[in-house]
Amino acid sequence: MIANDPYAELERRFGRLSAVNRAAAILNWDRSTMMPEGASEDRADQLATLSVMAHEIMVAADMPELLARAEEGRTTLGVWQAANLREMRHAWTHANALPADLVEARTRATSACEMAWREAKKAADFKRLLPTLGEVVTLTRRVGEAKAAALGLPLYDALLDEYEPGGRSARIDMLFGELRAFLPGLLRDVTERQKRAGAPLELDGPFAVEAQRALGEKLIRAIGFDFTHGRLDVSAHPFTGGTADDVRITTRYDEADFARALMGVLHECGHGLYEAGLPRDWRRQPVGLARGMVLHESQSLLMEMQACRSDAFIAFAAPLMRAAFGRSGPAWEAANIHRLYTRVAPGFIRVDADEVTYPLHIMLRYRLERAILGGDLALADLPGAWNDGMKELLGIVPTDDAVGCLQDIHWPDGAWGYFPTYTLGALAAAQLFAAARKATPGLMDAIGRGDFAPLLAWLRANVHAKGSLVDTDTLLTEATGAALGTAAFKTHLERRYLAQ
Amino acid sequence: MIANDPYAELERRFGRLSAVNRAAAILNWDRSTMMPEGASEDRADQLATLSVMAHEIMVAADMPELLARAEEGRTTLGVWQAANLREMRHAWTHANALPADLVEARTRATSACEMAWREAKKAADFKRLLPTLGEVVTLTRRVGEAKAAALGLPLYDALLDEYEPGGRSARIDMLFGELRAFLPGLLRDVTERQKRAGAPLELDGPFAVEAQRALGEKLIRAIGFDFTHGRLDVSAHPFTGGTADDVRITTRYDEADFARALMGVLHECGHGLYEAGLPRDWRRQPVGLARGMVLHESQSLLMEMQACRSDAFIAFAAPLMRAAFGRSGPAWEAANIHRLYTRVAPGFIRVDADEVTYPLHIMLRYRLERAILGGDLALADLPGAWNDGMKELLGIVPTDDAVGCLQDIHWPDGAWGYFPTYTLGALAAAQLFAAARKATPGLMDAIGRGDFAPLLAWLRANVHAKGSLVDTDTLLTEATGAALGTAAFKTHLERRYLAQ
Repeated sequence: MIANDPYAELERRFGRLSAVNRAAAILNWDRSTMMPEGASEDRADQLATLSVMAHEIMVAADMPELLARAEEGRTTLGVWQAANLREMRHAWTHANALPADLVEARTRATSACEMAWREAKKAADFKRLLPTLGEVVTLTRRVGEAKAAALGLPLYDALLDEYEPGGRSARIDMLFGELRAFLPGLLRDVTERQKRAGAPLELDGPFAVEAQRALGEKLIRAIGFDFTHGRLDVSAHPFTGGTADDVRITTRYDEADFARALMGVLHECGHGLYEAGLPRDWRRQPVGLARGMVLHESQSLLMEMQACRSDAFIAFAAPLMRAAFGRSGPAWEAANIHRLYTRVAPGFIRVDADEVTYPLHIMLRYRLERAILGGDLALADLPGAWNDGMKELLGIVPTDDAVGCLQDIHWPDGAWGYFPTYTLGALAAAQLFAAARKATPGLMDAIGRGDFAPLLAWLRANVHAKGSLVDTDTLLTEATGAALGTAAFKTHLERRYLAQ
Repeated sequence: MIANDPYAELERRFGRLSAVNRAAAILNWDRSTMMPEGASEDRADQLATLSVMAHEIMVAADMPELLARAEEGRTTLGVWQAANLREMRHAWTHANALPADLVEARTRATSACEMAWREAKKAADFKRLLPTLGEVVTLTRRVGEAKAAALGLPLYDALLDEYEPGGRSARIDMLFGELRAFLPGLLRDVTERQKRAGAPLELDGPFAVEAQRALGEKLIRAIGFDFTHGRLDVSAHPFTGGTADDVRITTRYDEADFARALMGVLHECGHGLYEAGLPRDWRRQPVGLARGMVLHESQSLLMEMQACRSDAFIAFAAPLMRAAFGRSGPAWEAANIHRLYTRVAPGFIRVDADEVTYPLHIMLRYRLERAILGGDLALADLPGAWNDGMKELLGIVPTDDAVGCLQDIHWPDGAWGYFPTYTLGALAAAQLFAAARKATPGLMDAIGRGDFAPLLAWLRANVHAKGSLVDTDTLLTEATGAALGTAAFKTHLERRYLAQ
């Protein structure tokens, strides 16, 4: 039975799908923050069931006809409705590309591989990961082939498209090529310059967890995080979860180092503000969801890297830090804290990397995952290729695989085609922040007073409230005057690290 | 399409239903404990969607045929499977009795009435509740008629059957009649005796919330609450939620009075132990769920009233209380604390009532809700009838409707036929505890040492692990040698309040 108004029927079904996905998002948050450990099998069963029920909505037998009939009537739809229909088709194409047995096989393989990865990493022994990771690669290739056929894209692009709709490797090659030509020289100059200036003074702990939490809360309140629609909690791996109306951000606290949790909270706050700012009328339909991982990461990095590591913000935050921990002295002056927060140094670990070296970590992973999927690099040769790449890009060689090719969960977890979105997000963050500053005189002065309203208003209007109405490049062009590029990011790094 | 093995197909469907309901249980817990206030509409949409999806599983067009075919093959099923099939049929009959528009109308009416109730209670003005409560009564009658037809029961019994499968008003009339003949005289004797003995010494606060929480946690750990499969949190109205593998109990703390939160925690712990003890292999099927509200309430009251207000337990707990709050002196001696915990006095408020007067509150509500549903009492006359009943049963007349007929949420909320299960639970608790003591020499001595293992082992074997395998009376007969009666409860009250 097909409805009289196929588009309205699609909205009804995708609304139900959204409710199931939002329920699952809260259950996932609970799993990482509140759930007692003995309940993991119970919760896995609940989440698997919701996932199957969501999938069933998507692959219902009459969906192709509903989509086709709605598309025939496209000219009668408003702008948001038409874009919503386009996003429905896109989501349906992804979901429908994969046979159920392949989805299930991949879920099983990534679960097994994730468990093997924890052991392999602990033992710093890549060989232990080989059998299960091999299976994940095989199944990821099959997924990629199926999606490539459905989307009419090359295999890698078909995988990337799930995280960043419209993302294409030819574009990434170009952008990463520009960074490759720029960053090593910049890194040399910056490290040389920072060496000459001498090391900043360290902030000595311990820093009580409750004081850290209260400081983080105070700062994200100032930035605009709405605690009537969100929470800040603790989890082993920080993330932003929940729903647009119920944003759950998390962090973890280290009593020896408050800067890391604090910057982590500001980072997740950026993600959370994006979610909270999604279009009110559409956030339960595909067109009202965040555009993709590039813009999502742009929002967290804009907040953490562009806004909150600025001189202006540190000048505002330094007195609050001193008050929070009851400290004073030269180490706690804004100028010293700013130097601490902008230290640059090549390191083995991606998640600890500064904004200058981070893209080099990503370029290595991007290069390697394409080579593995393309059959140009045997998995057994990954550790050697990793270490060669680290030497080439960052000038250092990991002391073992735990701090080398075993450090990330992404590949064991099946997230192939995800890594480049981090650096594309950093480029977008720089570009958006530069445009916001240009469009909003006094924006940095306001941030220096802890007033984020002008920045947030600009982001709301130009990014958040657009949801998935247009593609990433169109949104960036409308907001900044240009498609995604490296210019703003390069300018930002030169100004922050070489000009001052 | 009908499966080859209809019973197996039913297990698959009810397993999925269970997963949806367990997911909803966690989301409901989150709503009362963690959710930011701004997310209530979002959460309501998630829960409504899960509820509709659960209902759709139950009323699928081929369910009658599946059930019938499975019932034809009943002789090939094991004992648990056959009981599971019986429970499936029972759940299906309840779900299928109501047309969708009636379910929806009732949901809307109870939502509106609950909101009106909060206002009416605040203003102590029953008249404000009349219009919406009238609508709830009308729709509850329609629900009762539909269920009565489907189940072949009188209207009130059909409503009661949802909370207590197999519960019948003829039986309640008999049991309540026995209590009616016994309690007022006992109450007179006990209050007289307690008056002669003089008032116990009060425990002076304030009592820090964190110390209360830690004490509650310590005591329920001793009782056997497993924190690897559960949590203790705070909510405005204490409850037990979550799942058998993930039991979420809550309380609320009052800095002026720790006894209330503590006894509340012990009460919810009893509910939680029941859930956690449900049969491991069947807890995701209808036969593995708790038997009904009578046994559920029996488990909380057994723990709170029978075990934890005993001399033996108070002797164990008193030193822990002194240590928790850093207090000492005559008021903190076990004998005085026991007197505080067994004070009897008629009061207006059911939830504050002691175990002697509590059943009188329930008898009043039972009498009134039957009269209203039967058309023998006009809603407008409820306040007068309430006050007359209070005078008759408890000898006191409420000063206004807020502490009279407006005090409970149950009627506005649509829970008609629920009240009697509280007192039936109290009877079952006394009966089960007496049987446990008889079957387990040294049980009270163990409790006096804070060792609940013998009690818990008996409850696990005789109540928890049976799930819904047999009906309440069969379970009680197997466990205690008799169907539900008043003898053990009467003996308990006489021993505790008159003999010592």
